[in-house]
Amino acid sequence: MKIAIINGPNLNLLGKREPGIYGSESFEDYFKKLQKSFPAVELSYFQHNVEGEIINHLHEIGFSYDGILLNAGGYTHTSVAIRDAIAAIKAPVIEIHISNVYAREEFRHTSLIAAKCVGSICGLGMNGYRLGVQHFLNSIEFDFAVKPPSFQ
Amino acid sequence: MKIAIINGPNLNLLGKREPGIYGSESFEDYFKKLQKSFPAVELSYFQHNVEGEIINHLHEIGFSYDGILLNAGGYTHTSVAIRDAIAAIKAPVIEIHISNVYAREEFRHTSLIAAKCVGSICGLGMNGYRLGVQHFLNSIEFDFAVKPPSFQ
Amino acid sequence: MKIAIINGPNLNLLGKREPGIYGSESFEDYFKKLQKSFPAVELSYFQHNVEGEIINHLHEIGFSYDGILLNAGGYTHTSVAIRDAIAAIKAPVIEIHISNVYAREEFRHTSLIAAKCVGSICGLGMNGYRLGVQHFLNSIEFDFAVKPPSFQ
Amino acid sequence: MKIAIINGPNLNLLGKREPGIYGSESFEDYFKKLQKSFPAVELSYFQHNVEGEIINHLHEIGFSYDGILLNAGGYTHTSVAIRDAIAAIKAPVIEIHISNVYAREEFRHTSLIAAKCVGSICGLGMNGYRLGVQHFLNSIEFDFAVKPPSFQ
Amino acid sequence: MKIAIINGPNLNLLGKREPGIYGSESFEDYFKKLQKSFPAVELSYFQHNVEGEIINHLHEIGFSYDGILLNAGGYTHTSVAIRDAIAAIKAPVIEIHISNVYAREEFRHTSLIAAKCVGSICGLGMNGYRLGVQHFLNSIEFDFAVKPPSFQ
Amino acid sequence: MKIAIINGPNLNLLGKREPGIYGSESFEDYFKKLQKSFPAVELSYFQHNVEGEIINHLHEIGFSYDGILLNAGGYTHTSVAIRDAIAAIKAPVIEIHISNVYAREEFRHTSLIAAKCVGSICGLGMNGYRLGVQHFLNSIEFDFAVKPPSFQ
Amino acid sequence: MKIAIINGPNLNLLGKREPGIYGSESFEDYFKKLQKSFPAVELSYFQHNVEGEIINHLHEIGFSYDGILLNAGGYTHTSVAIRDAIAAIKAPVIEIHISNVYAREEFRHTSLIAAKCVGSICGLGMNGYRLGVQHFLNSIEFDFAVKPPSFQ
Amino acid sequence: MKIAIINGPNLNLLGKREPGIYGSESFEDYFKKLQKSFPAVELSYFQHNVEGEIINHLHEIGFSYDGILLNAGGYTHTSVAIRDAIAAIKAPVIEIHISNVYAREEFRHTSLIAAKCVGSICGLGMNGYRLGVQHFLNSIEFDFAVKPPSFQ
Amino acid sequence: MKIAIINGPNLNLLGKREPGIYGSESFEDYFKKLQKSFPAVELSYFQHNVEGEIINHLHEIGFSYDGILLNAGGYTHTSVAIRDAIAAIKAPVIEIHISNVYAREEFRHTSLIAAKCVGSICGLGMNGYRLGVQHFLNSIEFDFAVKPPSFQ
Amino acid sequence: MKIAIINGPNLNLLGKREPGIYGSESFEDYFKKLQKSFPAVELSYFQHNVEGEIINHLHEIGFSYDGILLNAGGYTHTSVAIRDAIAAIKAPVIEIHISNVYAREEFRHTSLIAAKCVGSICGLGMNGYRLGVQHFLNSIEFDFAVKPPSFQ
Amino acid sequence: MKIAIINGPNLNLLGKREPGIYGSESFEDYFKKLQKSFPAVELSYFQHNVEGEIINHLHEIGFSYDGILLNAGGYTHTSVAIRDAIAAIKAPVIEIHISNVYAREEFRHTSLIAAKCVGSICGLGMNGYRLGVQHFLNSIEFDFAVKPPSFQ
Amino acid sequence: MKIAIINGPNLNLLGKREPGIYGSESFEDYFKKLQKSFPAVELSYFQHNVEGEIINHLHEIGFSYDGILLNAGGYTHTSVAIRDAIAAIKAPVIEIHISNVYAREEFRHTSLIAAKCVGSICGLGMNGYRLGVQHFLNSIEFDFAVKPPSFQ
Repeated sequence: MKIAIINGPNLNLLGKREPGIYGSESFEDYFKKLQKSFPAVELSYFQHNVEGEIINHLHEIGFSYDGILLNAGGYTHTSVAIRDAIAAIKAPVIEIHISNVYAREEFRHTSLIAAKCVGSICGLGMNGYRLGVQHFLNSIEFDFAVKPPSFQ
Repeated sequence: MKIAIINGPNLNLLGKREPGIYGSESFEDYFKKLQKSFPAVELSYFQHNVEGEIINHLHEIGFSYDGILLNAGGYTHTSVAIRDAIAAIKAPVIEIHISNVYAREEFRHTSLIAAKCVGSICGLGMNGYRLGVQHFLNSIEFDFAVKPPSFQ
Repeated sequence: MKIAIINGPNLNLLGKREPGIYGSESFEDYFKKLQKSFPAVELSYFQHNVEGEIINHLHEIGFSYDGILLNAGGYTHTSVAIRDAIAAIKAPVIEIHISNVYAREEFRHTSLIAAKCVGSICGLGMNGYRLGVQHFLNSIEFDFAVKPPSFQ
Repeated sequence: MKIAIINGPNLNLLGKREPGIYGSESFEDYFKKLQKSFPAVELSYFQHNVEGEIINHLHEIGFSYDGILLNAGGYTHTSVAIRDAIAAIKAPVIEIHISNVYAREEFRHTSLIAAKCVGSICGLGMNGYRLGVQHFLNSIEFDFAVKPPSFQ
Repeated sequence: MKIAIINGPNLNLLGKREPGIYGSESFEDYFKKLQKSFPAVELSYFQHNVEGEIINHLHEIGFSYDGILLNAGGYTHTSVAIRDAIAAIKAPVIEIHISNVYAREEFRHTSLIAAKCVGSICGLGMNGYRLGVQHFLNSIEFDFAVKPPSFQ
Repeated sequence: MKIAIINGPNLNLLGKREPGIYGSESFEDYFKKLQKSFPAVELSYFQHNVEGEIINHLHEIGFSYDGILLNAGGYTHTSVAIRDAIAAIKAPVIEIHISNVYAREEFRHTSLIAAKCVGSICGLGMNGYRLGVQHFLNSIEFDFAVKPPSFQ
Repeated sequence: MKIAIINGPNLNLLGKREPGIYGSESFEDYFKKLQKSFPAVELSYFQHNVEGEIINHLHEIGFSYDGILLNAGGYTHTSVAIRDAIAAIKAPVIEIHISNVYAREEFRHTSLIAAKCVGSICGLGMNGYRLGVQHFLNSIEFDFAVKPPSFQ
Repeated sequence: MKIAIINGPNLNLLGKREPGIYGSESFEDYFKKLQKSFPAVELSYFQHNVEGEIINHLHEIGFSYDGILLNAGGYTHTSVAIRDAIAAIKAPVIEIHISNVYAREEFRHTSLIAAKCVGSICGLGMNGYRLGVQHFLNSIEFDFAVKPPSFQ
Repeated sequence: MKIAIINGPNLNLLGKREPGIYGSESFEDYFKKLQKSFPAVELSYFQHNVEGEIINHLHEIGFSYDGILLNAGGYTHTSVAIRDAIAAIKAPVIEIHISNVYAREEFRHTSLIAAKCVGSICGLGMNGYRLGVQHFLNSIEFDFAVKPPSFQ
Repeated sequence: MKIAIINGPNLNLLGKREPGIYGSESFEDYFKKLQKSFPAVELSYFQHNVEGEIINHLHEIGFSYDGILLNAGGYTHTSVAIRDAIAAIKAPVIEIHISNVYAREEFRHTSLIAAKCVGSICGLGMNGYRLGVQHFLNSIEFDFAVKPPSFQ
Repeated sequence: MKIAIINGPNLNLLGKREPGIYGSESFEDYFKKLQKSFPAVELSYFQHNVEGEIINHLHEIGFSYDGILLNAGGYTHTSVAIRDAIAAIKAPVIEIHISNVYAREEFRHTSLIAAKCVGSICGLGMNGYRLGVQHFLNSIEFDFAVKPPSFQ
Repeated sequence: MKIAIINGPNLNLLGKREPGIYGSESFEDYFKKLQKSFPAVELSYFQHNVEGEIINHLHEIGFSYDGILLNAGGYTHTSVAIRDAIAAIKAPVIEIHISNVYAREEFRHTSLIAAKCVGSICGLGMNGYRLGVQHFLNSIEFDFAVKPPSFQ
């Protein structure tokens, strides 16, 4: 099973940026722990601050991976282009947010990409990524469709 | 560890109602499987169609449980009263939606309760409840706060 | 043929409440006349002020009745939960309003339940219920579908 | 008793246009059946695609008829001028829609004429016209005002 | 003189809930003090978390009491049904809020019930109830109408 | 105890203006009665039609008085400058409205000053001023803070 | 000097329609009085209920008349096409309304044609037409431009 | 007959300010011409830049004059207080604007005072004042009510 | 191949009206050139200022022509009735605008008919009609569907 | 004559992405056909997923090319920066959309770039590009300005 | 060079009012320092809480000064009248705000006067005034227009 | 002291682009003058059209520079990602706009980044950058905090 984690703008600062909100661990450190926890999964990690490069990466892996966890950061609320990329690829995408966006500024309550994702996990900190990987694994263990037909 | 699952209006019809969207398994069946999967957790289940009874139940368990998974159904989008109940209790609440509400009618894109919950899991089918329980367990296993101080 | 009439909040005051708007006859009196007019129809009547109890009743009769006339009163404009209940059951529902809601306050011009009903009859006073029953009977007499396939 | 049916734009295509939504019977055929069903009523029928001609017809019959059933089609949502014509005449008007406008595009959820009509019947197919005629007859049979004083 | 106090959802938690906002005294304690302060007034107290039960209680006392103080809590902002109940009864109702709702979330700035109440007292803490009772007493002492004719 | 009453534009016409809404007593007459009722309170009265003069008066008394009752009239809905003045001074301000503004034009439902006041009393006629004075006195009698810390 | 008066939908009912609002004199009667008052002016009168015929008439006279008084009735608020016709012709147009549209329903507060007219006279009853004619005459008597260059 | 002209903020600059829009004549010059044209009318003129002073003047003359022409300038769009003053006095008020406000910035399309005036004259330059005076005179000459009962 | 061009209100003034925007050639002249350019196409031309007559013409040709170029002028932004006519007929319709409506007033940025057309050509002057004809011809030359199945 | 085609995000997937909507031909294949059809035109093609690179390319060619066909994909609805780039260059730009954006999600109905383009061609599939090239050629053949002076 | 500083409502409290936001220095103290820093500039200072007096002062100095720094305080967001005064005078005006209004309440994000000013300096504390004076001096030193022709 | 200037999209065209609005000097030329004027400051300059590269640059310098002047061009109004970058770094940022954005299109009146900047300078042409540098220098000269604690 191949699962990709894609992080959007400013998430390279994790551990540096507003630690009161996001904690002080870097994502690279966290990612290593995640790989250890799920040895049976081929996990990849990609971060970029450029909207179009996130689209490029979605195109690149979107036809061969089994699942994608996408934290599009600030682009979540402004990018029709990433929405279209998600709709264009085959791999199911789960939207991840580390903080509870609904408890922050009002413009963060609207996601342009949510409707094209399978679902979302929000506000559960770094653990949201772990739960996302778990969901893809559960779909095999308990035999259900990651992306149910009704949400096409 | 004591975790409560609370389902709101119409979720008693799970397995009967719009199976194309929600699947055909009843929640009671699913709940038994969940209990088996997490033998170390004291899991309770409550469903009611009356908004005020959900509030009553939140009051009842909200000062003694370690976590609550709340799928408030249609009340998610209209109930200030449930929002106030969540804010009033001590137990951290995770908002659950079985379907991807962001891919449905526009009025489902707004949650009145989200800002007072820890976070939300949405669109991942029945598995969302499992991931919610997992989150509470992970908080012990990996030693992090379920409800981080910054979101108080 | 089994047809249910469900009245929502404050409609128990019919005959007492704002008689200038709703007339001075109680619904129970009117219901008896209706039963006399349609001896071939099994008519039932239910009124409740609690939103969740209306949902409970819709669940109870919604899989065995041939039609439902629902005057949800004030819940018409605020209840996603009743909308979901109507969508979940099998019996076709016709929305009834005694007064012309479009000639009253602006918030009464929006119905959250209308899209999930077959149709609506509004502003024709108590006679709206009679016309609703008549519609179900006409569907047999003139052989057309109460709830046409295109509105599923 | 003299009752007029007025149909607005595109309703001359009934039977031709989008039969999946409106059925395949022409209105003229249906009108003949209606006349047979109500031999005691003097029924007239008028259809026009020009907004101003509908106003002309409302002026012409609006002071001598006992009731009018008006399906203003697309003008329902855009015509202040027809609204004013309804307010100017004496005959009570019932708004009719064949389809459930509340289950269609959002701009169809607003009626500019509803506030000046007695009430409306919507989504009950061609049978809506029959129920409208029935309402005027019921007002005599059961002795109530078609247009109650409170809705002036 | 008979005056009723009705408290809506979550107000049973007074003394427990967000004491930084509402203080730490329970309403029952406060109510006893109030009874002592106004020995000439027959004061009753009712609290419920269910919207429909508040409506039931309004119906029950609304034709025999001289005045009602209603703190509808979260239902203030969402309940057309309670608004209709207030309009339907005879007793004048004063809207009470303990906290200054205009200094809290934006959705709390809109009251669906205010237009049907005599007036409102807001942000003056528990003392708002005392002032409400005082108002009814003043109307006798200084001989003015609690609910002036112009606001019918 | 020093309490000031400040009335805004057009309130000098009280007794002349729209007596159907505001009664026929002048404010000066009413103020004398108020002084008699509260002999222990040093009551002052100021009325002006100029927005900036209301600000000047707030500055003048706002650092030495124990409480202010402000009926800003039409400026309630349009004056950021008065809002800023209230926020700038030390004396707690209670917003007063004689009529029930929520039962009048929609633009009167929004108060720009409410969020910076302690609270508001609205729709209780001239008696609102009396209750306002009473509130300040009660705060001493029952020993609570007029302006609770949580609303700073 | 040639001045045209154009009346839109329902204004043929003047004298019949809602006399409490518009008075009981027919426009034809009034027009004769106007002709007598202004013998030096060549006055014409046109009324039509069809939007497109109003456009046709504007085209017909719009390049030869010295001024037009247009009461577009209900089309005032909905017709981009009449706006475009006014912009396309040479004759200056003054918008006339008999009633004070700003004291009626909210949708009457917006005029789609006002920006392309020279100006408007509203709420002054039938006398508005007289003042409109007077304005064109004054422009000669006092030598000013009917349609000042700055409003092109 | 006593008629007052009241001009609001910046109209003292007439003749100086943006002459491309308002012309280069001062209002005092124009007012003298007006007095000569209507020798039988007692005309007064008042201009002030302070909102509250306009209110003071309305109070002063509003119970003894036969008519008022009010060009409230920028306060037209922002002053609830002037609206209330107009509603409070007895003299009928006609709203005057020199330029066509509907052809300028969008916020100038909304008048807070229009609903409380008899009517308005807009975009006809300085001649609007002359027509306003003429209207009051016409009401005597042709014997109609300046402020018809229906607009109370 | 039969292609119809339908022009809406005010387009009969082409060559006369605002030549700075639309050029000085009449549409009839332009149409003759078009016929010469496409000798193999049976081209028809219809213009009307009446909304309902445009609907009549769409009904008349809409079941026998291969394509329609519709410039609905001002009705583009206001006519649900023309939208319904386009949806009701079989011939594919392309929306044409001579000027770039997106560079003009904001209300011209919304088209009520666009969603029911195949597509639109806007801002390319008279040449837009030529390109529209070309599109229908290209669909044969290069063998693609004018109205692709996915846009039904 | 030098004409550039610029495609924005996700258009590199043409032929792969949602073929039910966009067809199954790659743009490169289509571009070759286009070059064959217009041998006299120097056609260039550029595609990029990064918003800023589209801006870079517009700068690069925008002062030397005779025309640009720009399908900005998802950036159409969100990019002020591309709008500014179009306004900054000399070459006239025509906006192209393959699908009928007005028949898709509501946020696709607004184009931030349209006002700065000459015009747009939308919903005509791949043929839209051909028509765009044709428009530039027609401007020479029939001697008209591609970007008429009135739209500066 | 003559430069005027005008401060609006509540700015007389500088040093007293909300010192956490605005600092504790009075404006008069600051102004003296400013005069010392710019000995070559004739600096004047005016503060008033009355909107109309600010307009009076703008009229008074607006035709003889070389530049004005205007901090209109709360009137910034509500005063069309001050906007009109700025547009009417000749001296270029720079809008000053001490605090960062964009980080405060939403209604402070809209300035009614900004469009008529040359520009604005916001959030830079008292230093904003110094920079404003500097800008006028720089325009001489580096020879550029304070108010560039393109912003007329 | 290290101060960075960052310019966003299209600002590389300065001197070429719309010189009527922005002048004809290139930014590089201007930057050299600036360096000469402030020899004690280490000034750096960066321009990029790619949103993500601006974020990268902010990350790179944001923890070592003393201040940043950011003209984000079109991204000002659309970029949550740049807003987040500003919030994440330590260096205080001042928002710069060359033109007066409040006198241009409405969408330019909203800045997504302003709330996270210290303040803004807008409409003062190229001189805005000079004033920005001056502000940082003044903070040392006059000893105040560039980014006052209250705006954290």
